[in-house]
Amino acid sequence: MEKDMLIDKLSKFSVEVPSWGFARSGTRFHSFHIPGEARTLNEKIEDAGIVAKLTGAVSSVAIHIPWDKSDDYEHLKKMAREVDLKIGAVNPNLFQEEEYLFGSLSNSDSAIRRKAIDHCLECIDIMKKTDSKALSLWLPDGSNYPGQTNMVKAFERLIESLKEIYIAMDDDMLLLIEYKFFEPAFYHTVLSDWGTAMLASNKLGERAKILVDLGHHPQGTNIEYIVGLASMEGKLGGFHFNSRKYADDDLTVGSMNPYELFLIFVQLNEFFDLSNNEVSLVIDQSHNVKSKIKAMIQSVTNLQKTYARSLLVDYEALEEARNGNDVVSAEEILKRAFESDVREIMSDMRSARSLPENPLEEFSRKFEGKLISKRG
Amino acid sequence: MEKDMLIDKLSKFSVEVPSWGFARSGTRFHSFHIPGEARTLNEKIEDAGIVAKLTGAVSSVAIHIPWDKSDDYEHLKKMAREVDLKIGAVNPNLFQEEEYLFGSLSNSDSAIRRKAIDHCLECIDIMKKTDSKALSLWLPDGSNYPGQTNMVKAFERLIESLKEIYIAMDDDMLLLIEYKFFEPAFYHTVLSDWGTAMLASNKLGERAKILVDLGHHPQGTNIEYIVGLASMEGKLGGFHFNSRKYADDDLTVGSMNPYELFLIFVQLNEFFDLSNNEVSLVIDQSHNVKSKIKAMIQSVTNLQKTYARSLLVDYEALEEARNGNDVVSAEEILKRAFESDVREIMSDMRSARSLPENPLEEFSRKFEGKLISKRG
Amino acid sequence: MEKDMLIDKLSKFSVEVPSWGFARSGTRFHSFHIPGEARTLNEKIEDAGIVAKLTGAVSSVAIHIPWDKSDDYEHLKKMAREVDLKIGAVNPNLFQEEEYLFGSLSNSDSAIRRKAIDHCLECIDIMKKTDSKALSLWLPDGSNYPGQTNMVKAFERLIESLKEIYIAMDDDMLLLIEYKFFEPAFYHTVLSDWGTAMLASNKLGERAKILVDLGHHPQGTNIEYIVGLASMEGKLGGFHFNSRKYADDDLTVGSMNPYELFLIFVQLNEFFDLSNNEVSLVIDQSHNVKSKIKAMIQSVTNLQKTYARSLLVDYEALEEARNGNDVVSAEEILKRAFESDVREIMSDMRSARSLPENPLEEFSRKFEGKLISKRG
Amino acid sequence: MEKDMLIDKLSKFSVEVPSWGFARSGTRFHSFHIPGEARTLNEKIEDAGIVAKLTGAVSSVAIHIPWDKSDDYEHLKKMAREVDLKIGAVNPNLFQEEEYLFGSLSNSDSAIRRKAIDHCLECIDIMKKTDSKALSLWLPDGSNYPGQTNMVKAFERLIESLKEIYIAMDDDMLLLIEYKFFEPAFYHTVLSDWGTAMLASNKLGERAKILVDLGHHPQGTNIEYIVGLASMEGKLGGFHFNSRKYADDDLTVGSMNPYELFLIFVQLNEFFDLSNNEVSLVIDQSHNVKSKIKAMIQSVTNLQKTYARSLLVDYEALEEARNGNDVVSAEEILKRAFESDVREIMSDMRSARSLPENPLEEFSRKFEGKLISKRG
Repeated sequence: MEKDMLIDKLSKFSVEVPSWGFARSGTRFHSFHIPGEARTLNEKIEDAGIVAKLTGAVSSVAIHIPWDKSDDYEHLKKMAREVDLKIGAVNPNLFQEEEYLFGSLSNSDSAIRRKAIDHCLECIDIMKKTDSKALSLWLPDGSNYPGQTNMVKAFERLIESLKEIYIAMDDDMLLLIEYKFFEPAFYHTVLSDWGTAMLASNKLGERAKILVDLGHHPQGTNIEYIVGLASMEGKLGGFHFNSRKYADDDLTVGSMNPYELFLIFVQLNEFFDLSNNEVSLVIDQSHNVKSKIKAMIQSVTNLQKTYARSLLVDYEALEEARNGNDVVSAEEILKRAFESDVREIMSDMRSARSLPENPLEEFSRKFEGKLISKRG
Repeated sequence: MEKDMLIDKLSKFSVEVPSWGFARSGTRFHSFHIPGEARTLNEKIEDAGIVAKLTGAVSSVAIHIPWDKSDDYEHLKKMAREVDLKIGAVNPNLFQEEEYLFGSLSNSDSAIRRKAIDHCLECIDIMKKTDSKALSLWLPDGSNYPGQTNMVKAFERLIESLKEIYIAMDDDMLLLIEYKFFEPAFYHTVLSDWGTAMLASNKLGERAKILVDLGHHPQGTNIEYIVGLASMEGKLGGFHFNSRKYADDDLTVGSMNPYELFLIFVQLNEFFDLSNNEVSLVIDQSHNVKSKIKAMIQSVTNLQKTYARSLLVDYEALEEARNGNDVVSAEEILKRAFESDVREIMSDMRSARSLPENPLEEFSRKFEGKLISKRG
Repeated sequence: MEKDMLIDKLSKFSVEVPSWGFARSGTRFHSFHIPGEARTLNEKIEDAGIVAKLTGAVSSVAIHIPWDKSDDYEHLKKMAREVDLKIGAVNPNLFQEEEYLFGSLSNSDSAIRRKAIDHCLECIDIMKKTDSKALSLWLPDGSNYPGQTNMVKAFERLIESLKEIYIAMDDDMLLLIEYKFFEPAFYHTVLSDWGTAMLASNKLGERAKILVDLGHHPQGTNIEYIVGLASMEGKLGGFHFNSRKYADDDLTVGSMNPYELFLIFVQLNEFFDLSNNEVSLVIDQSHNVKSKIKAMIQSVTNLQKTYARSLLVDYEALEEARNGNDVVSAEEILKRAFESDVREIMSDMRSARSLPENPLEEFSRKFEGKLISKRG
Repeated sequence: MEKDMLIDKLSKFSVEVPSWGFARSGTRFHSFHIPGEARTLNEKIEDAGIVAKLTGAVSSVAIHIPWDKSDDYEHLKKMAREVDLKIGAVNPNLFQEEEYLFGSLSNSDSAIRRKAIDHCLECIDIMKKTDSKALSLWLPDGSNYPGQTNMVKAFERLIESLKEIYIAMDDDMLLLIEYKFFEPAFYHTVLSDWGTAMLASNKLGERAKILVDLGHHPQGTNIEYIVGLASMEGKLGGFHFNSRKYADDDLTVGSMNPYELFLIFVQLNEFFDLSNNEVSLVIDQSHNVKSKIKAMIQSVTNLQKTYARSLLVDYEALEEARNGNDVVSAEEILKRAFESDVREIMSDMRSARSLPENPLEEFSRKFEGKLISKRG
């Protein structure tokens, strides 16, 4: 790819950050206080704005209801607009109410399903008020012990619930169905893999798509292949970017296996123009030991650099090598792009857009102290 | 369940054994000679007959082409009939020809795909000649390195190939599509999980179903849930029974986690009457250190005992406990059935049918010595 | 084994329950309220007493400092004594203070190490006051990102800290060193496997032993082999019993793979007389969806039944089969014991000791309602 | 690091290639013919020489007995010398004789242990004749089923066997003890992890060290930590380099997670000067679909590039960031080095030593055709 076009594409590339990524989070053992972390919705939007300003690659902020519930969504939109952001996906919370002990949308009790559906309908209402176009559904439902749940009936109840939600959505809204291998349920999870998410999505309609969270698969899973097949089927809705070494560790994206992340982008480029916002690229992480904002800057930057590297792949030569079963050449073509130093490209892109050369340092210099002294 | 009915169901329960389970096999490091192992097709059928005779629970023998290719399939049927067996699933071999280095039905070279399709058509022909009703397809296709294969196109080529095969099958024949997490391919496998197998099956038609091999999943996978969902969709075609601790270890079924096997049977009972041959229950193992026939007797017996235990579940009470979210009671209902000593039931069933009380001992006493002295 | 001796051994078999197993717990997403759960130290001891009374197989209760800190340990001992219990292992808490964000006993800051050491010394003091003989150390220390910590130096700092703790212990006290594959740290864990725990233990002395938690290993790990080797080395200190399907799920012991639990007991019997309290057998679970007391009754009962089954193994015949490399017979000997219905033995043991025939039902009938109405 | 010093270190860096990496290999399903593969010992040495000549970073070739057994080891040394190579580690083969069905050095039959010990003594003899300084022991011993083996006794028998071998070695020879999670044994492996290898090594003496094969760990294992602890203990003997996504896939080193490989080198640099041959760096791979020589060139080159990147780490700044618990900076210091384009450095090093600029292309141009036409 020509350098100009590469810089142009890189300039247009943007991702979504999660409001909850700026607030306190932790493990089941403890949530440590990280200096400067956001305490309110306002502060979360402020932080998202800082990351957007410093990286030039954030277009929207995902919100979580009820954590980000507001009396005045016009004000929320305005706050976001002031830092050049839109409201992105709306995320219902189906795991924190006592009623959901045995599940939410798949609960065997219709009154609890009702409550969960109503919460989703409320979220759709918030979507309308915030011009959000995606309902991003992660379902914690599952069971901890064999026997506890009739697993097939739970799936059927989920579909019944989802149909009501799906119908309530506008034609230009997407229902993103996330799957997860395990946790918080430890024996069975209703939406446990891309197969279950596809099954659900197929039963709903074309505006229901699957969402791939990089931390939600068994060890060794070839995620890029799932991405490819879902794309082929027109069913890839988006991502929750993060990284992990063990389970759903929610670490900074690209921190554990940057090559795997690159391979996912290579696969995406075969279907989408990512500079065009064709797929929902959302970061979903839980920063337990790092400065929340720095971790988010790292995440956005890692995604930018990975995208840049993926654009350096000579796709024509790759296809040719594949057709000749030249395994070594095909691999080397990928490796060549991956091993390229994209710092100059990043630097050129940044200076062309008057972005700081080093967002992390800029944050430390201009923002960090103030935020910590203000927030503690 | 009443004891009489239980014994009746247990009496009718039968499984399919694989011809290759009686012959030499091993790991990539070595295939050790096991005394008495079968060397010819005749000997494999003979051995299957011994297991059938001793356990009373084998109705058919799966064959593998070309390993079990014959000039005279009438003779093969007759041999099988003489030991009260039918020919079960026909298994094409798509992994041993040099042409398949880069894949068979999904190869980018149409001539190689042709060869692989033709081999499957040949197998369908053999099915007709042997009255077999299932083509059991395991596809080794995949790639070892990122870049090597355009994974999505490989899947599309596979579908194209399968369509030709599917069309050639009679209306009462099933195409069983097996998936596998990895091996022999180490980066990507074309049919890698139940999601890919379902996708393929959906693109073909209702006579294409998925086949679940217990050793082909990532660690921790809730296989019984996959079994349930596939059953719900009318897409469960059958099983390859074995056990594993690590990867596709192909150990005796029930040898590593007998409770998991029991849970699979509990799930099956909610959809099928297994005494009625409604699902294809095939053993697929590779016995590297045990006497082949003894290992097969253990396998059949383990399946019988597991089926018996699964019939002891009080399904009505289970459903009631579930509906009341009584996790402990639901679990205890399963545990009570699992922990039951079914030896008396097995013994009653065996004596009612004049089967030997202890098939393993009977084999040692009456057959083992002769086979070893004949075959070495 | 003769039935009398078996019942005698089973009668003497007892385990330790954890105070925290009766109180609220959950996942990082939420801790649900379970009706009747204990809210105070008194209630935890009361609950442990109920489980002891109903199962006849609990001799002590492990405590967690500061959760179970008391102004009057004489009173605590008295409370325990009243329900026929002793105070078991004392567990320091090194994961909930803000200072421990970057580690406790291995922290690079000597003041924080000091604080952590002092906490352990305080626990040793509590051991003396409560006649406890085991300091049970689980260390959350580790790091989330490559680079974060000099891993080797952290290990060396840990050893330095442990030496000070070890020296402060009486000659009849044990330091139990627990290891864990991951969580709460997601890149590296200072005590990550039995190899690191052995290394630490060897550097301290013979009263430092390793503690095996069944949920702290990579998938597929042969835990019984670790148990065997540590026993051979005189380094097996004890267990944290629980079960898991995925990670450290902290489910009821025996709920996921009861055969694996049986194999661990078979291995233990080759080194210890478990009816003699030679190894510390502690339950460590986090019951998120079950009644805490019922889950604990299930756990104790599962351990009793597993111990009974393991006593049914014909160890002499097993050794003979092994020496003859008779794989099938050796396996069948184990299976025969495992598949035995031990309910009659349990029943005989219970009636001989005037224990309730069905502890779960007895609890429901006599205790559950009162506890729920008292505690909510 | 100054560029000159970096190039100097990179110039001196060299690894060992395995003779068997040039010959046919495969999976348990099939070993495909790869054009140009070596068929004889001579051809393997020739191929090792080609890789050495093209990369400038191979100093020795590991041999496998009996595969590389020779009547004339003087001739073997001479052949090697002619292509500027030494004979590296000697690898006994304890997995291909029929006697080893139930184990070799740990077999319960003393006659079979004798045979296995004698084979190792023979290998030590070959070491003397070939000036090899390392006996590289990989033990396949283990069991497939619970009960099959008394695991602890098998370990004790292994130690007894190893003591005899250890004593027979010269003072300047190392015994490298390799461990493996599983395969070919599927229930238990005698040397299954670094803990078992350390235990064995400690029972032997200081010339017994552990060997880390990158494909022999459970998923998620932090290998660099094992490397660090073994180094701290003076027990790190060397590596078998390869890569994997699933199990022991034996893929090209660096092909699946190049960042993990980098982290291992970073850890190594904290203990060793790798330009000085202080640790045995051996490639151990099984190339099933790639040209054997090309795969080896890729492997050596990947190791060189990874070493170069690891030298770019600012270790002083890293230690400072660690001491200040500056997680983000510490991580960025590693990332900066990893993401550096080392192609210029590689190029400078190559031109300074008159090595071909692109070893893969040079091989294709000058060698590949000839080898294929000669060998088929």
